[in-house]
Order: sequence, then C-alpha cells, then structure tokens
Amino acid sequence: MAADRPPRTTVTSYDVARAAGVSQSAVSRCFKPGASVAPAKRDRIMAVARELGYAPNAIAQSLITKRSGLVAVIISNLTNLYYPEVLAELSRRLDARGMRVLLFALQAESDVDAVLAEVWRYRVDGIIAAARLLPAQLAAIAERGLPLVLYNRLSEGEPVASVCCDSVAGETLLIDRLVAAGHRRFGIISGPADSSVSNERVAAATARLALHGLVPLLAPGQFDHASGRAGLESLLAQADGGLDALVAANDLMAIGAIEAARARGLAVPGDLSVVGFDGVGPAGWDSFRLTTIRQPVQRMTEAAVALLAERIAQPELPPERRLFAGEFLPGASARLDPCPE
Amino acid sequence: MAADRPPRTTVTSYDVARAAGVSQSAVSRCFKPGASVAPAKRDRIMAVARELGYAPNAIAQSLITKRSGLVAVIISNLTNLYYPEVLAELSRRLDARGMRVLLFALQAESDVDAVLAEVWRYRVDGIIAAARLLPAQLAAIAERGLPLVLYNRLSEGEPVASVCCDSVAGETLLIDRLVAAGHRRFGIISGPADSSVSNERVAAATARLALHGLVPLLAPGQFDHASGRAGLESLLAQADGGLDALVAANDLMAIGAIEAARARGLAVPGDLSVVGFDGVGPAGWDSFRLTTIRQPVQRMTEAAVALLAERIAQPELPPERRLFAGEFLPGASARLDPCPE
Repeated sequence: MAADRPPRTTVTSYDVARAAGVSQSAVSRCFKPGASVAPAKRDRIMAVARELGYAPNAIAQSLITKRSGLVAVIISNLTNLYYPEVLAELSRRLDARGMRVLLFALQAESDVDAVLAEVWRYRVDGIIAAARLLPAQLAAIAERGLPLVLYNRLSEGEPVASVCCDSVAGETLLIDRLVAAGHRRFGIISGPADSSVSNERVAAATARLALHGLVPLLAPGQFDHASGRAGLESLLAQADGGLDALVAANDLMAIGAIEAARARGLAVPGDLSVVGFDGVGPAGWDSFRLTTIRQPVQRMTEAAVALLAERIAQPELPPERRLFAGEFLPGASARLDPCPE
Repeated sequence: MAADRPPRTTVTSYDVARAAGVSQSAVSRCFKPGASVAPAKRDRIMAVARELGYAPNAIAQSLITKRSGLVAVIISNLTNLYYPEVLAELSRRLDARGMRVLLFALQAESDVDAVLAEVWRYRVDGIIAAARLLPAQLAAIAERGLPLVLYNRLSEGEPVASVCCDSVAGETLLIDRLVAAGHRRFGIISGPADSSVSNERVAAATARLALHGLVPLLAPGQFDHASGRAGLESLLAQADGGLDALVAANDLMAIGAIEAARARGLAVPGDLSVVGFDGVGPAGWDSFRLTTIRQPVQRMTEAAVALLAERIAQPELPPERRLFAGEFLPGASARLDPCPE
C-alpha cells in the first residue's frame, strides 16, 4: 500500500517551515488547536501547507501526545427518530473542539463487548454512550482511566458522569395535566425492558398515577412505531371499561398508537388522549400534533461534550449528573382542559 | 495524561505469549482479521489476553501496516429521515469487515474542505461520501490515492466509484403511472439546488412529462417537511387551473405537501395525487401511505462497502458505478387507476 500512495504525504513540517520562512515550531503551532500564532503568519503558513499538500499525521502525533483526538460515540438505537439529531449535534460540537467521532452503531446491546475491544485498540480519548453498559463494562472503562459520559442512561454500576432529560418531572407534569382534565383510565406502553430511560419514565408515570389513586394498564413496546400500534391494541383488549388516556414511553410509539386508535374509529383526543416523550420532528406534524415533552437536545449535547472535555483534561474530576428539564409541548393529541361535567 | 492511565495498557503481546505458553506471532495472529489460529489455541490466548488486559494498539499498528482501519463517512443530511438507516447499515457492514466509521456529519456543504483536512490527518483507508464533493476536492482525494465511493451522488469531476438508486427509472415509472391514470396538471418540488440527487430526479420527471407533451410547474424545496408544505402552497398559487399531481423529490417533502393540502381542505388523493421518493419509515404510516419508490438500502450499502473494500485492497481498480432499481410502493396517496371518464 505505502508504495501506492503519492510521495506528497511525506511532506514534513520542516519542509513547510523552510518554504514559508518560519520556524518549525510555528508550523506545528498552526496545527495545534488553541495554540497562538499571529493571523498573518498563520495565513502564510497555511497557504504554503496547502500548496505542498502538508497535513500533520494525527496518528503519529497521538503516539507522542497520548491523545488520539477520537471520541467513541456508542448509540444503540440510531434509527429511532430521536438519535439522528443527537448524533448530528454531538458531531458538530466535538468537531468544534477538535475531536472526531468514532461511531459505534449497535445492532444489539450484546455487541458492547466487541465495541469496547475496538475502543481500547483505537486509544480513544473518551466515550459518550447512549447505550446500556453493564457494571463489568463500566468497571473496565474506569480501570483504563477512560473518561465516559452517559447520554440519557443511568449508570448501573459506580456513579458516572451523565446527561439526562428529567423523565420524572416530565411524566409527572403529563400525568397531572391529564388527571386534572378528568382522565381516569390510563394505559402505558413501555420501551424495551433493558432501557433505563423507559424504565424511569414508566416508573415515574406509574408512581404519579398512584398518588392520584389510579393504577394503569401496561403493555410492553420496543420504542418503534409498530409496537406503539400493537401496544394500543393490547391495552384496548385489556380495558373492559375502555381507556381515557395513553402514555407512551416515547413519541414514535405514541404516533403508532394514534394511528391504531384512528384505524379503530377512535378520535384522538376526542375518544382517547395520547401523550409521548422526546419531541421528535414528526411529533409536530399536523397529522399528530402530539402532546409531549421535548428534550433540549442542543443543551444536552453541549453538556455531554463539555463534561467529556473536562474529564479528558482532568481525569480526576468526580462524576457529575446533569439533569435537564424537558419542554412541555401542548400539541393537540390530549384533552388538557378540565371536563365541564 | 500518560501518567494518569493505569499501567495495564502497556501489557504487550510478548507478555501474553509468555503467560499462554505460545509464540508472540501466535498472539499477533489472534488479533489480525482473517489470520489462522487453531480454535483451542485462540481460546487460550484470548482468555489470557483478557485476564492481562491486553489490547493491540491499532494506532501503532497502523504506522507499520499503513492501514488505520478507519473509513471516513461523510454525510451532509443526517437529520433527513433517509440517512440514519444508511448510516446504521454502513456502520454494521464496515464493522463486519473489521473497519471503523470515522463520522463527519456536515452542517453545510462548505465544511468539506475542513473535513478533508481531518481525513488526511487520520490516514483513513478510504472514504464513503453522501455529500457534494467539488472537482478540486475529488482531485485532492485521487492525488492521495485514497479509495472513494460516492453514495447517491454523481461525480462532478473524473469518474469515481459510486452507488446510486436509479432516479430516472423511478421517476419515469411514477410519471407514466400518473399520466396513464389521467393526471395532466403537474407540479414538482425539487430539493436543494446543489443536490445531484434532486437535480437528477427533477430532470427525469420533467423529461418524461415532456414526452407526454406536459410541462410541470416548479417549486424549490430543501428536502425537509417545511419546504414540502411551502412548495405546495407555491404551486397552488401558480396553478390557475388547479393541480392534479404533485411530484416531490423526496418523501419528507411529499409528507409536508400532503399535510399542507389537507390543511386547505384538499383530499389526497381525491383532489390531488402526491408521490415521493426514498421509502422512509413514515412514508408507510397510515396517515400518509405514500406512493413512492423505495431505495434498496440494504443492497446499496452492501455495494458501497464492497466497492470500497475492493479498492482498498486494489487501488488500481477502475471506477465502477452500481445503479440499483428502486421498489415501487403503490401506497394510497396517488390515484393510479385510469379515470373512467
């Protein structure tokens, strides 16, 4: 392979320095994020570097600096409508700090061991994980001193830096509004059993309903459209006296449930109120106008990147959990005004 | 930093060999994809490697092998509903071949120069680009001997390996079916002006309409839901005699247009037929049941990875364009049976 590459890739910083009439260290500083070089000098050096085709070798640099500039981003649910926006925002913000995304899109949660083997091999500077990590996996990461930030997941082992949207506050608000408007017969569609986000949302909704003296019917889901449909069917089959309100653990299942309800001739929200969680794009479309909680993705991704960058610079920083309130989107898929009766 | 990492990362293949009672080259072969090691021996070596916390350093290896195992995936439109599935499939398939995704999610097409600077720095083995590359950028990639595969983009410079869905065949089929069913007054909503996919689809639809003696009205869009809505409004404002059929350059705009039509009291397809392109998840939802062309994402991503892997192994292979027929999804958003009149 090496012989196939043009000789251009062997241009060194010394060649650039000579051609630009500056010191090698000035060239080096031009390619180091945050290092100071006078603007005019930088422009001249960069023009020469471009002309000669010089690019610093990040890989060779990393052996010296012990920084690869790579951040492993592990996502278990990329085709969920929520995560593409998260990934795009993480990528943009890491980029702005001179870090690159080494992407691991999990097919199944059981892939995590294989992913971690690659993470070690590439000497990443840190990990942002929107995936379930088992205690042994968390311990292996900690043992290597690798900074880790969990995104919308809770640690099942030792405390770890994390960024979450406040599921408890969000579900509490939704339940209180629905109960105040007269809803009494509730159904909940949960996400995958191993999803801490789903478990937290379902537990919060159930606990709040209990405070109101209500017990919901439950149906299991998978965070996708089809299981939202199936979940509604299952709940209606269980509900002798019918259903007033459906609480789905995410928007995509709420949308599936709305479509299933309509297919059965039920009006939403006339016959059934439906609420979701996330605030994904389609939730705002005319066809659904979903009553939901929007996660503040901009602020959450910025926080995740900031937590990680701090810990790359100072690995001894203690774990910190940053919890963001979601934004209530009233939409039009739930009756929220008190019934006149 | 180095001092903060536990000493465990300095375990070498020689340490593993000694502890497992095998040669260093046997250990090395265990971590080389495709190299042969007897299963029992491999199990013993891997158990010892795990116990000692040994992981080969991919970065140091890459300086010797001149292969980083990294593939740059450049995507300009990650929050478009189509690309998350593409990215998940590319990731899975590259992974199966022992390659890792270095992700570049573009905010604006103008970021490509900055991305390429990083691509050189990380000594990637190849590039898969679903983004617009200018002739000078293509030339810079070629000059470095870097294998490149374009995904759903046409090269604007020298021929390059590419994988595309056949826009011409897809649009031709849609137009023929619509014309056969009696539609005469057409509107087209295009994607971004610099998108080769949009240009190809719009040109194909327009050319086919011309063969039928028809000239469509045109509205510019941005491949998103909002511009589908705005596009429909613009077309209706232009269309004195009304509109029979709307051809959107992607599904997301078609969905926006359907919602805008309904908001004006137009029935789809009763008053207006709407067709899209891509076959994204929401196109199949009850609320839309879009008449569209589904891109064969599985086969296209497999082809992209295969084309790239071949060119990493044999850089001298000539460019090849692989064009896949889309699958016609009849849906229910267009009247496709001939009018009885």
